[in-house]
Amino acid sequence: MKSISSLQNPLVKQVIQLLEKSRERRSTGLFVIEGRREIELALKGGYQLQTIMICPDIFSENASEINFPEKQHIEISPEVYQKLAYRKTTEGILAIAESKELSLDALRIKNENPLILVAEAPEKPGNIGALLRTADAANLDAVIIANPRTDMYNPNIIRSSVGCIFTRAIATGSTEEIIQFLKEKDIDIYSAALQASKPFYNCDYRGPTALVVGTEAAGLSQNWLDSSTQNIVIPMEGDIDSMNVSVAAGILIFEAKRQRNLNN
Amino acid sequence: MKSISSLQNPLVKQVIQLLEKSRERRSTGLFVIEGRREIELALKGGYQLQTIMICPDIFSENASEINFPEKQHIEISPEVYQKLAYRKTTEGILAIAESKELSLDALRIKNENPLILVAEAPEKPGNIGALLRTADAANLDAVIIANPRTDMYNPNIIRSSVGCIFTRAIATGSTEEIIQFLKEKDIDIYSAALQASKPFYNCDYRGPTALVVGTEAAGLSQNWLDSSTQNIVIPMEGDIDSMNVSVAAGILIFEAKRQRNLNN
Repeated sequence: MKSISSLQNPLVKQVIQLLEKSRERRSTGLFVIEGRREIELALKGGYQLQTIMICPDIFSENASEINFPEKQHIEISPEVYQKLAYRKTTEGILAIAESKELSLDALRIKNENPLILVAEAPEKPGNIGALLRTADAANLDAVIIANPRTDMYNPNIIRSSVGCIFTRAIATGSTEEIIQFLKEKDIDIYSAALQASKPFYNCDYRGPTALVVGTEAAGLSQNWLDSSTQNIVIPMEGDIDSMNVSVAAGILIFEAKRQRNLNN
Repeated sequence: MKSISSLQNPLVKQVIQLLEKSRERRSTGLFVIEGRREIELALKGGYQLQTIMICPDIFSENASEINFPEKQHIEISPEVYQKLAYRKTTEGILAIAESKELSLDALRIKNENPLILVAEAPEKPGNIGALLRTADAANLDAVIIANPRTDMYNPNIIRSSVGCIFTRAIATGSTEEIIQFLKEKDIDIYSAALQASKPFYNCDYRGPTALVVGTEAAGLSQNWLDSSTQNIVIPMEGDIDSMNVSVAAGILIFEAKRQRNLNN
């Protein structure tokens, strides 16, 4: 097995570039995954691994026993691992993987009566991760990010999603493209807006449904509000007129799930 | 007006202690608030300010025009402000305030049919802030933190709550004390548990209700599960069996709100 202990090694430098630079991820079609569970979910989601890097001093199991495909396994020293890893003293395993095309064209929605979450321009990678966790819990048919501010293979998104980004059907696109996509498929659009008059629990989400949430600071763009089947509001009765975007999305998603489960 | 420009000033050192040390906050009964909106909410919530510190170079309005009570106003230099403030280039205003007694004995629940959130031992101050924001949006009658890992005047809680910690009815206590408190008041206890068999939407929350959530890592302690009127589950259908605690709380709270609003 090949082994790396120098921080000057070209592969180490490449991993740092892939972790830090969206442009590098886009130009190479590669990204980095940290952690055993995350790597296993990537394999479950059909991702191809290019390289697996293991730090034997930290990784608790014998590398040869890992149920990962035969790939270029490389041993790295603790010094190298700690340079590359966010969780510096746990896990002990990293992988370089090949990214997928996340365009709307490539999105396959298998359910004839889908429930979809759309989030427009989420401010923070951690918010996208939290949205994906909620989408995972609800087993949504797709998560679509409109006008993303980063690529989806940002390490903070992967980490905060606990790896479920790899097993969800996800796509990105411009707001205009997504609206067209939903309308072509006859999927009802419910846009969350502070100004809307209809409480979210007074709508019927049992048909093909997209729930759309905006940023905490600015809400949704006008295009979404104009293109909705119905604009909906989570009634707020407090002193501050704001709610965490992943909390708001969770409330809407599980109201839809409630209606659909009662219907069964 | 008194003015401070030295980082060695005793008041500057005291503020740093109050920001960093729970023990200091507890022993003095004081804490620090950053930001105009947060200070205004503290005044709305009946908190007494001891000192207001303004950095005129950053604070955009004339200090004399602020609608704050006549107190010990102190001007501080940008260097001092940036040493003390989290948002180093905005706001320009800090206050030292007197903390309140947050025991269950001091908790006043005004609603005869209350809706209460209990969170047991939240891992991060930011989670408590997010819970408080959701509680604010829903205008809950109380938020009770069981077995807290920090005092409620931790600056990260104040910041992540956007100041609504000051206007909500909140208390802390041990799990045992809180269970006794709720039972004495005939408030139904609904404990969220991954192992529970009853989906959350199949319960009736229109009577006096406490919704109880645990940590993401360990869930609720057995005492809560044994003391419940009913244990409830948010059905999870995904690859990862976890949800952000503030998302889970939001889903439960707004299901209760939905039922109560339909009832009106």
